[in-house]
Amino acid sequence: MKKEYKQLAPDYRLLLGPGPVEVSPRVLNAMSKPLYGHLDHKFLDIANETMELLRYAFQTENRMTLPMSGTGSAGMETVMVNLLEPGDSAIVCVSGVFGQRLRDMAGRCGAKVISVEAPWGEIIDPEKVREAFKNNSNIKLVAIVHAETSTGVKQPLEEISRIAKENDALLVVDAVTSLGGTDLKIDEWGIDACYSGTQKALSCPPGLSPVTFGKKAIEALNNRKTKVNSWYLDLSMIQNYWGQERTYHHTAPINMIYGLREALLMVYEEGLEERFKRHQLNSDAFVAGVEAMGLKMVVKNKEHRLPTLNAVSIPEGVEDAAVRKYLLEKYGIEIGGGLGDFKGKAWRVGLMGESSSRNNVILLLGALGDAFMAQGHRADVGAAITAALNVYQKTSR
Amino acid sequence: MKKEYKQLAPDYRLLLGPGPVEVSPRVLNAMSKPLYGHLDHKFLDIANETMELLRYAFQTENRMTLPMSGTGSAGMETVMVNLLEPGDSAIVCVSGVFGQRLRDMAGRCGAKVISVEAPWGEIIDPEKVREAFKNNSNIKLVAIVHAETSTGVKQPLEEISRIAKENDALLVVDAVTSLGGTDLKIDEWGIDACYSGTQKALSCPPGLSPVTFGKKAIEALNNRKTKVNSWYLDLSMIQNYWGQERTYHHTAPINMIYGLREALLMVYEEGLEERFKRHQLNSDAFVAGVEAMGLKMVVKNKEHRLPTLNAVSIPEGVEDAAVRKYLLEKYGIEIGGGLGDFKGKAWRVGLMGESSSRNNVILLLGALGDAFMAQGHRADVGAAITAALNVYQKTSR
Repeated sequence: MKKEYKQLAPDYRLLLGPGPVEVSPRVLNAMSKPLYGHLDHKFLDIANETMELLRYAFQTENRMTLPMSGTGSAGMETVMVNLLEPGDSAIVCVSGVFGQRLRDMAGRCGAKVISVEAPWGEIIDPEKVREAFKNNSNIKLVAIVHAETSTGVKQPLEEISRIAKENDALLVVDAVTSLGGTDLKIDEWGIDACYSGTQKALSCPPGLSPVTFGKKAIEALNNRKTKVNSWYLDLSMIQNYWGQERTYHHTAPINMIYGLREALLMVYEEGLEERFKRHQLNSDAFVAGVEAMGLKMVVKNKEHRLPTLNAVSIPEGVEDAAVRKYLLEKYGIEIGGGLGDFKGKAWRVGLMGESSSRNNVILLLGALGDAFMAQGHRADVGAAITAALNVYQKTSR
Repeated sequence: MKKEYKQLAPDYRLLLGPGPVEVSPRVLNAMSKPLYGHLDHKFLDIANETMELLRYAFQTENRMTLPMSGTGSAGMETVMVNLLEPGDSAIVCVSGVFGQRLRDMAGRCGAKVISVEAPWGEIIDPEKVREAFKNNSNIKLVAIVHAETSTGVKQPLEEISRIAKENDALLVVDAVTSLGGTDLKIDEWGIDACYSGTQKALSCPPGLSPVTFGKKAIEALNNRKTKVNSWYLDLSMIQNYWGQERTYHHTAPINMIYGLREALLMVYEEGLEERFKRHQLNSDAFVAGVEAMGLKMVVKNKEHRLPTLNAVSIPEGVEDAAVRKYLLEKYGIEIGGGLGDFKGKAWRVGLMGESSSRNNVILLLGALGDAFMAQGHRADVGAAITAALNVYQKTSR
């Protein structure tokens, strides 16, 4: 007797976690279109448009701006394996899980790694980076996370970019949770290489990782003495598929690229400035709401909070899993638990892309209050929603 | 003025090349379903079912049977980076582009690589593998391509498996173009590690790479002295997401997994035996047709021809590009050009998954004859189609 499998019919979910987040039906519909071959000139036109739209989102003129065929961590690995070879030295800034991951990857490339750390929930102090340069020579690159998904910190980059330049080092930036949700100026800020993911503020399903490499990064790539560790992520070959030559490297994930193009088109139609304002406003309203409910944000300094990923401290005595389970079962709402050091200590609320809306903020505040009360805790839902509404009413939006 | 982008509306295509091939609307529809989070228990059920169905397709009981989050070449790299570390020795069999790629990857892992070669279009002679073992010691693994997509050769594996076992080496197999299209018995043939792609005989869009690791391969992984070169493809961590622990590693590509599950379900419903018969029959009919038209198959020995990937020699004087352009423009049909040494010398006709049908064989023979005549060449279309029909009529299918 053969086992019977049911038809795929996902239950209702409202994704308000660290990603994946809500995806527009426009994007899902694009992903379900019939396939072109990966060398079909019509598909290559779509690939070109995707690169153009990615340059818009990254605010860059970099020719080498393309989606890698893997999720965000594949983009992280792409940047590290292409830029580092055994014997190189790298400064890696660590103040959360994704900084740790960068450090791990740099080590696997055979690089000497100098860590610059900050407590979780705080930004990396540029002076510490300056110090690391003073104490070490021949640093090839500085790697830093712009949007630390494990803590909700938004890292200012301009001062660290200046320090990297003074020391003739490349600046590598993780923008997985910032691209398309908060300002990220690749060219203006002097970022040499950057990667992101599709399932965060771009509001596309996970599966691709946009990367962008500037001239200095390409020079470093071209001046390597050894082959890139990874064949799959070797940009010296991949650039010939995405460039004029159109040389086959691996089979591009056609439907994922259809979806990314559509998601990027939605970013383009909304306009970056408008989109960033929307993300900031919804985050402000949510934060006002949770604070009015007596909860505290993980990131103390308002200036350093991401609008995309809102980390809320779990109050003493409140059971993490019970609250999340209640939200999932009663509302179909997913929020994220804490990662690494913050496991059981923080909730991560993603208000990114399609998930960043007034409707979702109001609903989540209500649902969160309900979940608290159901666990026997006090929660002033009225105050929370009033505080959020006040934020909206102060704007004309 | 903002540039205007058109709505995504792909032109008609019939994909009869080396992959991607035709994808069922069932699979495209599954890919467009709303997302679960990657740690949602409902998604993890879907992931479990996907693994079960993959075990069915691979004919294995291997617990570690899962889709890697990248295209087929990421699967190739997964196997090599997890099993090889600097200083290891590996025998790599090379008789086409994908054998060359395996060799390149083994080298990037820091392994000493011993090549065993065969002319393109022929199988690797097991005696040469035996000889390579005699002339070298401490061989950790033998890597070989089951279905060489660049030549259309189907490599027998049982004798080489015995030789590997006699020498206490692992057998690593590339089944990108065979899984789901022609017999592949992981357990019965003693294959220790194997990888495939989704866009070939599984008839799913490209984007994932199913892999399977047996006990001996997992032992080798667990006995490594060094970290795996690649963080993204490190199975020692990835197995904890796909296993009982469900530890977050990277965000799984949700919608691609929806699609793969549906494609595998179609394999399961048809049944492997039926599916292999269908592929063989359509290939036989196609080959009878092209031979009746006076064309020659690249692989001379019938026993060594893949039913999934049918490589046809381009006759003297016929212009490769003109014929393929004609097929694309007049019929929307894509067939593949030659790769590597076979560039301009062979066409690669994929009759895999949804593309493997009587309708497509008859249509393609007619279209190919038309393309020949349009270029001023003779082509006996009548003989070709009659020969193909004879093959079908000899069966009750």
